[in-house]
Amino acid sequence: MTDIEQGTALAPKWDAAGLVTAVATDHRTGELLMLAHMNADALAATMQTGEAHFWSRSRGRLWKKGETSGHVLRVVEMRIDCDQDALWLKVDAAGPACHTGERSCFYRRIEGGALVRD
Amino acid sequence: MTDIEQGTALAPKWDAAGLVTAVATDHRTGELLMLAHMNADALAATMQTGEAHFWSRSRGRLWKKGETSGHVLRVVEMRIDCDQDALWLKVDAAGPACHTGERSCFYRRIEGGALVRD
Repeated sequence: MTDIEQGTALAPKWDAAGLVTAVATDHRTGELLMLAHMNADALAATMQTGEAHFWSRSRGRLWKKGETSGHVLRVVEMRIDCDQDALWLKVDAAGPACHTGERSCFYRRIEGGALVRD
Repeated sequence: MTDIEQGTALAPKWDAAGLVTAVATDHRTGELLMLAHMNADALAATMQTGEAHFWSRSRGRLWKKGETSGHVLRVVEMRIDCDQDALWLKVDAAGPACHTGERSCFYRRIEGGALVRD
């Protein structure tokens, strides 16, 4: 057991790229909506505004989820894991969380080695 | 839209280290239990046995969750996200999912910049 695990200080363990993984679930249903990454700026912006911000690895910039679509994720609660390298956001989603238009990015089930949409 | 996003073929997008992120939630409550990583062997073992296997980045080896503690995660359903670089495991947990003894690794809430255990 360490202070990182047992303490009350928020001390995210950023990876080599300065990121932690962030998981967003629907605060009502528990459905896993999306998985993304945050750097220190994204975490600060999320805490300040109450709306989820992430670091886009593909675009190399900070983005507010829904900044163009309007499908923002309002953060109801934010939690951190034992070693402080992952965040759990319970959110109220203003629309589909996935860029494909699906409510969740996890719209396919793995069944017998293939994918089923249900 | 691409085949990766729309197709029925399981084609995980392994990162440079050969890994994808795997998120485990309690299949009854929706609680986020833990976040870990899988390589191709871990995914294959999980699909074959119905029990969650991961790749330990710190130990550099395949591990079955609960192999020593007995706290295995039985996979009820497995889903994959749009770009196939993240897995969602809905599980039936035989015991605490966190190595600290907590039911979930996310046992602390972020509140006003500090951590609260509740």
